[in-house]
Amino acid sequence: MGELGEFGLIALVNAGRTQTPGVLLGPGDDAAVIAAPEGRFVVTTDMLVQDRHFRTDWSSPQEIGRKAIAQNAADVVAMGAVPSAFVVGLGCPAETPVEFVRALADGMWAEAGRAGASIAGGDMVRSPLIIISVTAFGDPRRAPIKLSGARPGDVVAVAGPLGHSGAGFAVLSAGTAGNAEFADVETEFADVVAAHRVPRPPYEAVLELPDTAEITALTDVSDGLLADLGHIAESSRVAIDLESAALADPELEAVGKALGVSPLDWILAGGEDHAFAATFADSGDVPEGWRRVGRVVAGEGVTVDGTSRTGPAGWDSFA
Amino acid sequence: MGELGEFGLIALVNAGRTQTPGVLLGPGDDAAVIAAPEGRFVVTTDMLVQDRHFRTDWSSPQEIGRKAIAQNAADVVAMGAVPSAFVVGLGCPAETPVEFVRALADGMWAEAGRAGASIAGGDMVRSPLIIISVTAFGDPRRAPIKLSGARPGDVVAVAGPLGHSGAGFAVLSAGTAGNAEFADVETEFADVVAAHRVPRPPYEAVLELPDTAEITALTDVSDGLLADLGHIAESSRVAIDLESAALADPELEAVGKALGVSPLDWILAGGEDHAFAATFADSGDVPEGWRRVGRVVAGEGVTVDGTSRTGPAGWDSFA
Repeated sequence: MGELGEFGLIALVNAGRTQTPGVLLGPGDDAAVIAAPEGRFVVTTDMLVQDRHFRTDWSSPQEIGRKAIAQNAADVVAMGAVPSAFVVGLGCPAETPVEFVRALADGMWAEAGRAGASIAGGDMVRSPLIIISVTAFGDPRRAPIKLSGARPGDVVAVAGPLGHSGAGFAVLSAGTAGNAEFADVETEFADVVAAHRVPRPPYEAVLELPDTAEITALTDVSDGLLADLGHIAESSRVAIDLESAALADPELEAVGKALGVSPLDWILAGGEDHAFAATFADSGDVPEGWRRVGRVVAGEGVTVDGTSRTGPAGWDSFA
Repeated sequence: MGELGEFGLIALVNAGRTQTPGVLLGPGDDAAVIAAPEGRFVVTTDMLVQDRHFRTDWSSPQEIGRKAIAQNAADVVAMGAVPSAFVVGLGCPAETPVEFVRALADGMWAEAGRAGASIAGGDMVRSPLIIISVTAFGDPRRAPIKLSGARPGDVVAVAGPLGHSGAGFAVLSAGTAGNAEFADVETEFADVVAAHRVPRPPYEAVLELPDTAEITALTDVSDGLLADLGHIAESSRVAIDLESAALADPELEAVGKALGVSPLDWILAGGEDHAFAATFADSGDVPEGWRRVGRVVAGEGVTVDGTSRTGPAGWDSFA
């Protein structure tokens, strides 16, 4: 990268890209200009640090780029907003191969496209390790769906698989540990490994909610279901009770057995699936793409089958 | 920091802060919501890496925080937009003192306030070194002022001091080198050291431009005057000729003499002052707060007194 220089690199990652219409002015000036047709925009930002949030020996640069965009797009969608653009800060060692950076950008553009948006600008700097900072924007076409709207009597529902990323992380960890008995787990459980490498937030489950859906609170599952529903419970001053039977996922049974882990641990605390968890007023069926997993009640905290759960409670950056 | 945890830290840096009215929903949900009354917003992002963009033995955490916000606010203003909000990603080692983080946030809030905006949200993660990623937003109350509008015959003008940050950097470098002859330079030239630690972009010179000012192109001086005017020249397909006599700054004479450096080197290539450089249609005097330093002509490149300049040409992150 040192040979190309900052401006050569910026030209390289932007070559051949087509901005979506919401990007009124893309890279190349002091700042980009993004449309905000609703007169307001939602914004979220995440920083990813090499060897803490991703490993270059576990994931390809495309996969790392996709994941960085997906987790931010999920936060935008978790407000009920439609992704409109992203900006990306990238820190890399000078000796990083140019191909790595191009592939990282390819992954980012691919996931941005899946979310219906493009990458409007960014910054590239030299850093001793790879740092990716993504900021995502969205148009709130309806009132923002906050954490604080859940009410006793509401139904708790989720969209998208839970625990697959956590299971994939466990598989990769077991494989990397070098124990002969786990030599083949990565191949055997390629699906959950893929889910860990590239989360697939079901954006459409939120963005295509029918107008009749009485959604009262919404979040994406980034830190683990218990932790993220805990934020809804705390903000809404309610309690949430989950049904373990409704959460069970047959796809995780075999990998749990192979690694000696209860799949429910991954489902409740695994994080990084970027599924969506919501509460709906109880007016019959939950909308298409959602499955009912629990109930909002008076009180505080999150329980499973009526009891508090011990064990891993989710991700904390400094824990 | 490890003891407080991510959510404790987020609570700490946000305690007692008052959001400006443009922040419709601040920290605490999946994303923030920012007003965009013009139906569009400008956005820029910069990543600052410890020991590359700042040193904790050269600058206090307040100063580092101010500088991180100032350089992003300057990019927003360099589009002719009014800063509306910032979001901040922060990576820190777990052993970073909580007081450091609080002071960093204090500096950020102070400079955000000087720019008329507040910090609407962010992310905190663990990292082996301190990484600060700032994304800044602004309202374009007029058509964005781009790099590409300069025309032959225009006047080149600057607002704010040039070369002071570069001189301050040279003073700090000389002092740190431990040569006895430079032991007192930091105290003797405290003004330029302060300018290096905390740039003071003259936001008002742009934001209070009279409606009659025919500004044709604008940028902030982050990489050095030659480099940044080079971006205007290239985007506008014109040449720019500067007058060294108009650029001379008596305040830099003594420090140049003490360090054996021609002050013009700092003025032309120093960078990080976050002054503003603009071109105006030649209709008499340049607006208040601006000084005329050159002329737009046909051709390409940037010259000084009609000749190309050799020597340092400005900052490139990977050079």
